[in-house]
This record gives sequence, structure tokens and C-alpha cells, in this order.
Amino acid sequence: MTIKIVTTGGTIDKIYFDRKNEFQVGAPQIGEVLTEANVTLDYEVIQLIRKDSLDLTDADRRRIYETIRSDPGHHFVVTHGTDTMLVTAKVLKPINDKVIVLTGAMQPAKFRQTDAVFNIAAAITAVQLLRPGVYIAMNGRIFDPATTRKNIEQNRFEPVG
Amino acid sequence: MTIKIVTTGGTIDKIYFDRKNEFQVGAPQIGEVLTEANVTLDYEVIQLIRKDSLDLTDADRRRIYETIRSDPGHHFVVTHGTDTMLVTAKVLKPINDKVIVLTGAMQPAKFRQTDAVFNIAAAITAVQLLRPGVYIAMNGRIFDPATTRKNIEQNRFEPVG
Amino acid sequence: MTIKIVTTGGTIDKIYFDRKNEFQVGAPQIGEVLTEANVTLDYEVIQLIRKDSLDLTDADRRRIYETIRSDPGHHFVVTHGTDTMLVTAKVLKPINDKVIVLTGAMQPAKFRQTDAVFNIAAAITAVQLLRPGVYIAMNGRIFDPATTRKNIEQNRFEPVG
Amino acid sequence: MTIKIVTTGGTIDKIYFDRKNEFQVGAPQIGEVLTEANVTLDYEVIQLIRKDSLDLTDADRRRIYETIRSDPGHHFVVTHGTDTMLVTAKVLKPINDKVIVLTGAMQPAKFRQTDAVFNIAAAITAVQLLRPGVYIAMNGRIFDPATTRKNIEQNRFEPVG
Repeated sequence: MTIKIVTTGGTIDKIYFDRKNEFQVGAPQIGEVLTEANVTLDYEVIQLIRKDSLDLTDADRRRIYETIRSDPGHHFVVTHGTDTMLVTAKVLKPINDKVIVLTGAMQPAKFRQTDAVFNIAAAITAVQLLRPGVYIAMNGRIFDPATTRKNIEQNRFEPVG
Repeated sequence: MTIKIVTTGGTIDKIYFDRKNEFQVGAPQIGEVLTEANVTLDYEVIQLIRKDSLDLTDADRRRIYETIRSDPGHHFVVTHGTDTMLVTAKVLKPINDKVIVLTGAMQPAKFRQTDAVFNIAAAITAVQLLRPGVYIAMNGRIFDPATTRKNIEQNRFEPVG
Repeated sequence: MTIKIVTTGGTIDKIYFDRKNEFQVGAPQIGEVLTEANVTLDYEVIQLIRKDSLDLTDADRRRIYETIRSDPGHHFVVTHGTDTMLVTAKVLKPINDKVIVLTGAMQPAKFRQTDAVFNIAAAITAVQLLRPGVYIAMNGRIFDPATTRKNIEQNRFEPVG
Repeated sequence: MTIKIVTTGGTIDKIYFDRKNEFQVGAPQIGEVLTEANVTLDYEVIQLIRKDSLDLTDADRRRIYETIRSDPGHHFVVTHGTDTMLVTAKVLKPINDKVIVLTGAMQPAKFRQTDAVFNIAAAITAVQLLRPGVYIAMNGRIFDPATTRKNIEQNRFEPVG
């Protein structure tokens, strides 16, 4: 099994440019995370988009969809900003013969304290064990996007209804 | 679902005592890891043993077995030293109505670079998704203890046969 | 000797608010840095301003000046954004009976990789050893603000002339 | 000014070998610390000894002494275990035409929480500002070895008398 990792940006990859006095979405951090954890799986990182998820357009989501749909792989982890992760999950839903797990972070992977490593590990593990479908791995849990929301106040994902 | 976390020591919990000029197995780190990742699952930490896994005795393994067997819970993560993780997994095998995932680390959780956070996240995720049985979550993969070995040279777990 | 630490914001104290999807200057980090290093000096943290240094006004600089001038202390460390650190140093120059060391960071203290801890330690050390005057501690060196510039391209302080 | 950095081992350089299930004094960490802090000083690392300071012999101390005495440099930072740092400082005392600052750490540089970065920065700063002599930079302070002790209970250096 080869896991395909599609990176789209988001907080997880934010870095600080002192020269510009601003934070930007940088290169994907997931490769370093997997290396540090001595992960021995076969995986391939597809650097697709590098945006805050609030800036993702319909065209961007179409590209994510097409990339996964047309790829011969069966197991996909998508790193994504948390603000519109559920929107992208909905766009991916019609792909029903692959396992797709979206994850991201509330604090950048570059921070000393971050949820990025944990969330990546959760997604990498879940994608190996779940049946085909689209899932979200956040806050230590596996969510069905259809019944999940991001609780902005509490800064976490939670089930609805 | 409440996840019961049984801690038994191992490298994952090693800390440094300058006063004694030595490293020792300290208090379990898993609680801090789960807090930093904003994990919203119900879980309970059972601090059972605090030993290097090379020092675990048959009586210790019996205690781990009895603790899990007699506990009303159904989902268990066991943090454990890597050297004899497979031995303990074998002892736990007769418990066939619970999901038990063992994990540990090659580098202490207190280190700046460590596999501890990743491995804990993998175990926490796997225990929610797997059927009853005993498993090992290491190096980004889920192993069946019956067909796994620790490769001492490469410092990783891998399938045999 | 009591070291007075005047915090004015800057990159060193930047944190990430996922809720607002932005980085902001947060609470001063220097207290945590000194605690982690087991610093046994007497020191007092004066939280004065919490701004990017590009946003500091003449009135802000006047406040920094008055705070130090009127304080009975003789040894001051000022944490400050790097972009206008030299401007503030010039404003403080007339205070010629106190040792004042300005420092900051190119990467926030909250980052896993940062120059914040090093720079704070350099400033804390320098303020104990230097004669009255205004200095900048950055990049492992002690600079005279009159003959120093921030090299934006190289992202470091360096002597001019 | 070129700073010569003589490394002798100690807690500051301790790493963990899972294969041997033990901690050992590893390669000097100071180069990485100086790089991460973007230090622009000229410096040279002399890897001399790699031992716990309790294991240093008279011959080792003689070697440290001879290395510094015969070196054309004038500014030396010595990284050293804390247990016998004062003993080595005494051996170096006869060298009265150079600035020599010893430092070390109570927690290894590889740890997520450590005093190593702070102490290295303090030593690097102090060596540039002090007059010839032998000093210890620990706990945010500069000590005269003749009137200092390591308080084992409190795990820190402090003045005596």
C-alpha cells in the first residue's frame, strides 16, 4: 500500500517571514514529520496548493478532486486548512472507491507546541484502517464530514446533531 | 467510547535527573501529549508500572494482563518499552474481546525530536478503528505481533516472513 | 542587582490565533524563557507595549524612554521588534547613567526553531557586564546602535562603516 | 575576534541510543545552537573530549589546559559537565592572559525543555565582554569559580561565603 499525501496548505504549514513581517503558508511540513517519526510506510507527497483554506476557490477544490479521482492510488491523506475542510470534504464525497482522510492543525507544525504531528499520525493511521469514503481526522477522533462542524469558539471539531 | 491508557514505562517516558546524573523512567507523558493535541476523546490514564521494558518480569506482565482483562473497558492503549513489547503482546493475546494497541518510542517524548507523539496518535486512532485483538502501532504502521520483530540494527519494527 | 525587563512586543512574542486566522503579538515570552533556563537573578518584567515594532509611535517611544528614565533601576533589557529597534535605541541614548540592552528575535519564541532564547540570554548577560549606555544584542554580538544596521536581505544585524 | 569553543562532553551533549538502551555523551550540540540563533561571530569548535564530567581524569584536564594555553586565540568557551566544572576551572586558572568561560547544562540540548541554549548564549556573550580570567556562566549569571559551588539539592550554581 502506498499512501498518497495531497498538500493544500493551511495553518499546518504556516511559517514566519521576518523580512516581510508576516506569516505565510510555506512548504509542506508532513515529510519532515514522517521522517522524524521513522515512518516506514510507502508514501508519496503531492504538493498541490499552498493556500489558507479561506482562500481556496471552487477551481482549487475541483483540482483536489481531479487529482485524487484520476490518481491510481487508493489511500489519500489531504492536509488542509481547518476553516473550509468540511467544504472540501463534501466536494470529494462522490469519490467512493478510495479512502480519503483530511487533516490539518490549529497550530503550525513549526511551533514548539502544536497539534500537527498528532493529527498527521492520526490521518496516516486512519487511512490504512478505514473503508472507502471521506473522513476528517482531528482532535484525536475520526469524523464523518456530513455530521461534523468546526466549533470556532472552542477551536475544535465536534459532531453535530 | 472511553479509551483506557495503561502506562508501563519504557523509553517514551524517560527523563533526565541531573542530580543523579542518569536517565530514569519518569511519569507518563501521554497525558501531556493528548492535551497538547486538544484531544476531545474520553480517556483515562492508568499508571501501572514505571520500568524499562527489559526489566519487566513475568509478574509485571501478569499484572498488565489482569488489569486489562478485569477492566470493564473495551479499548486499551498500552505504552511500553520497545525491547519486549512483543513479549507483552503475546501475554495479552488470550484477551480476545477487547481492542488492545501497544505503542512506545525510540526517542523519549521529552526530546525535541521524538517519535513519541506520532506513535501515541497512531495508537489512539487505531484503537478506535480496529476489531478486538492485540496490535502494535509503531513506525506509522499497525502490526500483528505474531508476525513482527524489532529490527535492532535499523531501530524499527518490521514484518517477518 | 535587579534586572528590569521592559517588553514592547515584536516578533519574539508573536503567537497564532487560529480563531482569527492570524498571528498577533501576544504576552511576553521572556518570563518562560528565564524560568526554563533556571535563571536565579533578580528580575522584574514590565509589560509596557504589545506591538509590532513597525507600529510603534513617537508617543510609544517616549513612554519607553520615560519608563526607563524614571525607574530607580540601573540595568534594563528591552524586548523589541527588530524593524525599528535602532530607532528606539536612538531615543533612549540620552539616558547615560543606566545600562540598556535591546534585543528581539527573527523567529517567534513559540517556534520550535527560534533565535529568541539565545538573544534573551545574550541580553541578560550583557546587561550585567557592560558600562552604562545603550546596546543591541543580536546574532550573538553586542552592537553599538550608532554604527549598526538591520540587513533586511540577510535578515540579521551588522556593523556599518 | 574569533571565539574558540572547546567541547569536553557533559549533560549538554547527551543523546539517547535506543539500540543500547542508554544515554551517552554524543557529538557537541553547540554548533547547531549557534546556527539556529544565526550567530554571525567568527568561531571555531574544537572537539576535545566526550565524557561525563565525573569521568574526567587529571590527564583530561591537563589536555584542556594545554589546548587553551598553546592556542593562539584569546577568547575561549568551554562546554563541560556541571559536576566537576569547578575543578576544571581551577586547573585553568593559571592561564591569565585569556578570557575563558565554562558553561554546560542541567538538561541536554536535545531536550524540548533545556537550559543549554540559554547557557551557551550567556557564555558566548560573556567571553566577548569580560577581561582575561576564568569564569562560569550558569543560571543566567557569571560566576567567579573561586567563590562558587554547585548546589546539588537545588540543581544550580550559587555563590558561596
